[in-house]
Amino acid sequence: MSTKAGTKRVYDFAEGSRDMRDLLGGKGANVAEMTRLGLPVPQGFTVTTATCIDYLENDHTNPEGLDDEVSEHLGRLEEAVGKTLGDPDNPLLVSVRSGAKFSMPGMMDTVLNLGLNDKSVEGLAARTGNPRFAYDSYRRFIQMFGDVVAEVDRDLFEKALTAMKKDRGVEQDVDLTADDLKELVGRFKQIYKDNKGEDFPQDPRAQLDASINAVFESWDNKRARDYRRMARIPHDLGTAVNVQQMVFGNTGSGSATGVAFTRDNTTGEKGEPFGEFLVNAQGEDVVAGIRTPEQLPKLRDHLPEAYDKLIATMDMLEKTYRNMQDVEFTIEDGQLYMLQTRNGKRSAQAMARIAVDMVDEGHVTAEESLRDLVDASQVRQLLLPQLDAANAPDPVASGVAASPGAACGLIAFTADEAEERARAGEKVILVRDETTPDDFHGMVASEGILTARGGKTSHAAIVAVGMGTPAVTGVSGLHIDEHEKTLTVGGRTATAGDHITIDGTTGTVFIGDAPLLPPDPHNPYLERILEWSDKHRRLQVRTNADTPEDAARARDFGAEGIGLCRTEHMFGGEDRLPHVRAMIMAETHEDLVASLHPLREFQEEDFYGIFKAMEGLPVTVRLLDPPLHEFLPDYTDLRMRVAAAQISGRPDEEAEEQLPKVEKLQEVNPMLGTRGVRLGIEIPELYRMQVAAIINAACRVKKDTGHEPIVEIMIPLVGFDEELRFMRDEVVDVAEAALKERGETLHYTVGTMIELPRAAMVADEIAHHADFFSFGTNDLTQTTLGFSRDDAETKFLAQYLEQGIIQSNPFEHIDQKGVGGLVKIVCDLARDVKKIKLGVCGEHGGDPDSVKFFHTLGLDYVSCSPFRVQTARIAAAQAALEQGENDR
Amino acid sequence: MSTKAGTKRVYDFAEGSRDMRDLLGGKGANVAEMTRLGLPVPQGFTVTTATCIDYLENDHTNPEGLDDEVSEHLGRLEEAVGKTLGDPDNPLLVSVRSGAKFSMPGMMDTVLNLGLNDKSVEGLAARTGNPRFAYDSYRRFIQMFGDVVAEVDRDLFEKALTAMKKDRGVEQDVDLTADDLKELVGRFKQIYKDNKGEDFPQDPRAQLDASINAVFESWDNKRARDYRRMARIPHDLGTAVNVQQMVFGNTGSGSATGVAFTRDNTTGEKGEPFGEFLVNAQGEDVVAGIRTPEQLPKLRDHLPEAYDKLIATMDMLEKTYRNMQDVEFTIEDGQLYMLQTRNGKRSAQAMARIAVDMVDEGHVTAEESLRDLVDASQVRQLLLPQLDAANAPDPVASGVAASPGAACGLIAFTADEAEERARAGEKVILVRDETTPDDFHGMVASEGILTARGGKTSHAAIVAVGMGTPAVTGVSGLHIDEHEKTLTVGGRTATAGDHITIDGTTGTVFIGDAPLLPPDPHNPYLERILEWSDKHRRLQVRTNADTPEDAARARDFGAEGIGLCRTEHMFGGEDRLPHVRAMIMAETHEDLVASLHPLREFQEEDFYGIFKAMEGLPVTVRLLDPPLHEFLPDYTDLRMRVAAAQISGRPDEEAEEQLPKVEKLQEVNPMLGTRGVRLGIEIPELYRMQVAAIINAACRVKKDTGHEPIVEIMIPLVGFDEELRFMRDEVVDVAEAALKERGETLHYTVGTMIELPRAAMVADEIAHHADFFSFGTNDLTQTTLGFSRDDAETKFLAQYLEQGIIQSNPFEHIDQKGVGGLVKIVCDLARDVKKIKLGVCGEHGGDPDSVKFFHTLGLDYVSCSPFRVQTARIAAAQAALEQGENDR
Repeated sequence: MSTKAGTKRVYDFAEGSRDMRDLLGGKGANVAEMTRLGLPVPQGFTVTTATCIDYLENDHTNPEGLDDEVSEHLGRLEEAVGKTLGDPDNPLLVSVRSGAKFSMPGMMDTVLNLGLNDKSVEGLAARTGNPRFAYDSYRRFIQMFGDVVAEVDRDLFEKALTAMKKDRGVEQDVDLTADDLKELVGRFKQIYKDNKGEDFPQDPRAQLDASINAVFESWDNKRARDYRRMARIPHDLGTAVNVQQMVFGNTGSGSATGVAFTRDNTTGEKGEPFGEFLVNAQGEDVVAGIRTPEQLPKLRDHLPEAYDKLIATMDMLEKTYRNMQDVEFTIEDGQLYMLQTRNGKRSAQAMARIAVDMVDEGHVTAEESLRDLVDASQVRQLLLPQLDAANAPDPVASGVAASPGAACGLIAFTADEAEERARAGEKVILVRDETTPDDFHGMVASEGILTARGGKTSHAAIVAVGMGTPAVTGVSGLHIDEHEKTLTVGGRTATAGDHITIDGTTGTVFIGDAPLLPPDPHNPYLERILEWSDKHRRLQVRTNADTPEDAARARDFGAEGIGLCRTEHMFGGEDRLPHVRAMIMAETHEDLVASLHPLREFQEEDFYGIFKAMEGLPVTVRLLDPPLHEFLPDYTDLRMRVAAAQISGRPDEEAEEQLPKVEKLQEVNPMLGTRGVRLGIEIPELYRMQVAAIINAACRVKKDTGHEPIVEIMIPLVGFDEELRFMRDEVVDVAEAALKERGETLHYTVGTMIELPRAAMVADEIAHHADFFSFGTNDLTQTTLGFSRDDAETKFLAQYLEQGIIQSNPFEHIDQKGVGGLVKIVCDLARDVKKIKLGVCGEHGGDPDSVKFFHTLGLDYVSCSPFRVQTARIAAAQAALEQGENDR
Repeated sequence: MSTKAGTKRVYDFAEGSRDMRDLLGGKGANVAEMTRLGLPVPQGFTVTTATCIDYLENDHTNPEGLDDEVSEHLGRLEEAVGKTLGDPDNPLLVSVRSGAKFSMPGMMDTVLNLGLNDKSVEGLAARTGNPRFAYDSYRRFIQMFGDVVAEVDRDLFEKALTAMKKDRGVEQDVDLTADDLKELVGRFKQIYKDNKGEDFPQDPRAQLDASINAVFESWDNKRARDYRRMARIPHDLGTAVNVQQMVFGNTGSGSATGVAFTRDNTTGEKGEPFGEFLVNAQGEDVVAGIRTPEQLPKLRDHLPEAYDKLIATMDMLEKTYRNMQDVEFTIEDGQLYMLQTRNGKRSAQAMARIAVDMVDEGHVTAEESLRDLVDASQVRQLLLPQLDAANAPDPVASGVAASPGAACGLIAFTADEAEERARAGEKVILVRDETTPDDFHGMVASEGILTARGGKTSHAAIVAVGMGTPAVTGVSGLHIDEHEKTLTVGGRTATAGDHITIDGTTGTVFIGDAPLLPPDPHNPYLERILEWSDKHRRLQVRTNADTPEDAARARDFGAEGIGLCRTEHMFGGEDRLPHVRAMIMAETHEDLVASLHPLREFQEEDFYGIFKAMEGLPVTVRLLDPPLHEFLPDYTDLRMRVAAAQISGRPDEEAEEQLPKVEKLQEVNPMLGTRGVRLGIEIPELYRMQVAAIINAACRVKKDTGHEPIVEIMIPLVGFDEELRFMRDEVVDVAEAALKERGETLHYTVGTMIELPRAAMVADEIAHHADFFSFGTNDLTQTTLGFSRDDAETKFLAQYLEQGIIQSNPFEHIDQKGVGGLVKIVCDLARDVKKIKLGVCGEHGGDPDSVKFFHTLGLDYVSCSPFRVQTARIAAAQAALEQGENDR
């Protein structure tokens, strides 16, 4: 393959800018930008990413002309700093660092102190008056060059160093003298020669060329390739190579090195300068934590001039980058050098405050702030107590991070116990093997929920997310002895009433009370950001809510309707469950109808409350979805109870009655079994009861308030047009009869969830019978990927993420090509048939990346749990701004 | 909506032909054809299907000009037959019958004997000299017209008839005299008047117009609509109305009526004329079975002239239709009338023979025969013993028709018992709640398999289909008491050693030996048909086979390779299962490797045999697919055993050891859990062992025979390109190491199954790492439709089929729009990337409809069980011929 002759391959820092990341890499572009701004950056030049690719593709040889270009730029560098590489009197030392377009921390190679040889090391010693420093630098260089460039086993050098320390009877590297180090240099050179078969190169230019090529090669090492696969970075970008004059913060008390933020990264406050530094130290020392760094304001006392210059520089960088900056600096003999600047990481609180302050201070417009300074995915943290991780002890176990936020409380092993203790004013964590609808009252009463089994779609997780209660599920090492009222986890045992803390954000568990940070429900900065967002977004944001309380809370968070009201959650209350079970156990049509009567009354009251709470806004009610055996006890438990009853001679009538029914309802793969519309077709009376309850409740609200509820009835799990046609006829039949009986009129619509790949493929046929589609992306992900969420998240999915086989959890961020591809097919097919309302009611509706994807498909709304409504509002606005950008 | 003026709406029979089914319906076109051929057809005319649609769309009123056209054609009819409708002396009687393009038996309305009134009935009595006949015809007409046209409850007429018989003290209708019937006519007219509020119409033309409109209306009745939905007949076709002169086979001994086939419909033989007739009877009497009909040759004795004419007519019709015909005829006073002709239904044996004989007799070409006379779906019946349904008793129960064919034998309740009795030379039916790999040796030994649980993908069903053993599964009323060695089903009890018969073709069960028909494995007619097929087909046909015996058998049936060799079936043998379990239970890497060693030896021997049997043909080996818990005992059973051991104090070490592992491996939805490539990634040693066994076996075959096996290694359940990239690297790594060690070379390819919707959506990405794709349409159907086959087939699917919500079982005939749509996406995406071999290895590969669909997508091959290879060869040829037709 021929390389492109005549291409410019090397750029002085002064020739680049922050817009040239593609060619110069992130680091190269940032130092170029600082150089362009006239800031004190150690000088140097960058070999382009394109050169790296040419080198690798051209049989690992340098493209023509590269040598000359490097010579030219090296010459300019030597001239500018007045030092020469390898000069025995006043040598120039350089660093050679990789720097790709996207940050790949630690994945590729670096060589420091390049330019030292047997002669220039003397010059350095003389110039700095510090022979120890000079020989230490030289031995480090040989070691690094040997390892990175010549592939000599670095252990050999380490062993020689250890032997030297033992020989000298000292503990620390710093205790070795200049003479010791000079001797060590000799031994290192011998190691190099023994292993490489040639002398350590004394020609600085040969050192440089070999180091540049070694950085090129490191782009292709296994570690880097694996990282890129994981981080979805393309393999054909290449890395740039930055050759930069070395500066030293360890030349004496006039020197220092440090890191700093332009604003407080936890509060966002722009107050005192924020950062840390060490006098007479190198960058590595700050990171290594051997000495305790000092707070930045102290630097004013040590080196006032350099300090003032640093503060002014940081201010300038923040204004230039229009974002909070994280900088690295070194002061060499009173002279400030800027080594790096980049946008700083920050807490959710800081993120919100900085986004607003930057607008108020006039640095950015509200649109720019929303687009560039707001991280929608951090918003939810503002609404939850968080673990104070810095002050927390080590966790004793970890499981699935099922519902975020942290909680402390007393252990309760049963729902009744939880409820009792909560009534007595205590904070409780409910701990169960897994939860069932029987436990609902205890879950409501608890601050947090901890289970030994189940993933993010377990009963515990779904109920917890819906209530905004922190939860950790699927803690595999958690053993619960309900009888003895003890739990054992991570080798610790605790009993009912002991304190425990769970962190649902990370999935960790602590024995005792770990420290928490309180939430800030009315963060004024967030309110401003939401104001801006609502001006820009096109997507509507609804909520998934099953109770009047949830509905009201979501409305408070800005929800514009209910996109998913799950009627099965109304079946779980302890007052309802006996009737649900009676319905399932009904042997005759009469029994069935009789069991449905009380359920209808319960449901009507529920819907009445929800419709009232959502006055003026649409409410999408999904008819019953889960398989019926979920409302009965576990099959194996029943078998055990019946067997125990037989042996003991004490009959267990309930278990004996339920067992045959549970046996009959058992399914190999309940996810793909008799649920959703299949239930509605099998037991038409059930859906008819629900529709009657919905319509009657709506009529009563209309009468009582004078406002007509906006009712949308949704049929789940449709895969065939005929299912929806049939069920729509049923719904209309019941609704019209109910309205006729009441002498009322009511507008209502009928739609379906799209949650099966077949439904996507035949969306045109199904659209004929639907007023709206709502994408149930949770189940659509399960069926499209063939991932049972309960099984995947506690089994192979973790390994897949770790090995980089998939890049993100597809239940958190929508799989755009697979599941998203089907969503796109639906949009195209359905819109060809009719104008139809399209929304999303899966959990992806509250994930910023997914929300942006849905925006680009032109959907009408997303629906998410109440606590994610604000996140979705912001993400929707960001999507609109980004699209506006792209369309321009 | 305006109707099309100037359109011809009524056709004399003499104006139509067999090509006019769209306009005249099937019946109208056939009588027109017979008329055109100069055959003796009672004359008449047909009102077009388009008129029906116009009537229904035009607010249920006749289109302009219809009255005049009916008058004109009625006039021509009266003139031609020399009788007039309603004539008091010599009345014309007509039938008014529906007749749509596609047969909808019994769905729409018919009126007979139209034209009778108080006067013409006397003319009919005088003319026939048979007043009883005349009045019986009149009362029948009033009843039929009352019911069909005037919507008078037909029960009222039946009750009056019953009252009359009671009054006269007679049992049978035929015992009523002419006077009785005359009186009954009076009563019927009164019933009509009482209910309709007007007199029974005496004007024959009014009778005719009302009857034609009633037939139009019947197109839209619920029964007809439901039928069309089920049979996928469009609703906008309409029905034609045939008005035809009535002829009577019951006017005396010179009259007769009957049905006949041009060839024997069970053997296909063209020997003696084949059919049945009754002298002095009406068509209804033949069907009703009140009198025993005589065999057709006897008609020569009774009515030689009419007989000769009938034989000549049938011969002519067969030549015209170029197919075996099924005719209805009536002889009125020695005069033959042909009432209907259509292609006759026939047995598999008859189908094959007729297809060949028709070619040898020069009626059709081989291509025409293959396309029009061969029913590929019947072919498999030729290879299986069939229940002699005509002579079988009533079944005692029914379940899932899991594997076709019928079998008789002694009941065995355990695999060991089955094996023992089989060794003793007895024929055995294995009866189990459900089967597991532990039962394999017993299944091999049995003639048939019967289970209480499981559908078509249960262990029992899959193994049975693979072995060609008849099986009935999921018989819900079957109770097995293993302890007492009894089964109870349909109120009958049988014990071990009693005889039982199962019919896997229909899913029925019989106590005792039911009569069977033997198979004909070397049917010479079928051989001829297969010869033609192989000339025309483009699709290759492979087989799914897991043993050398299956491979050899399939090769004998014409398989051109193995498209799916399921390695897990090799894990089930009782000599292997302990090693498989040791592998699963392995705690350390050492244990794991140790357990894999014997398995590798077993697998290598298996592959050696298969590669040898398939010399020169490709073999696709699928690496292990099912979740590992399938190889361990059931979770609930283990729990029960452990509990029992605790109570009894007799330790059950095996159960106690296995329970924690089974608990850990348990999955909520195993279909969507840790299986396929996910296993290969979790336990790389497992797939590596399998690849080493494959490569070593292939090398040994190459060495021993001099022929290099064509090895294709297939990775199951891939959904992400990275899964296949990773696993392909592993396969190549192991294979190259094995080849290097042996100093051999071997060409092998690596591909994947497409069985997840995501794999379809990203087929382009996956194709980069694959040499071939094989569509696993069983699992692709499960995931695309969200149907767990085990659950669906024994639960909601039956109801869906019954209610017409879906038209056919998607596991038998591919769902073309949903699953097929995804297959099409794959073809398009993959072919954009590279030329890639595409095949099907799901059960659809043996279903003729599905094979034709795959042909149209341009796939390379289908693979099916050995017993369906011949079916697929024929279907592939038919697809090619049909496509050739369409392309012309």
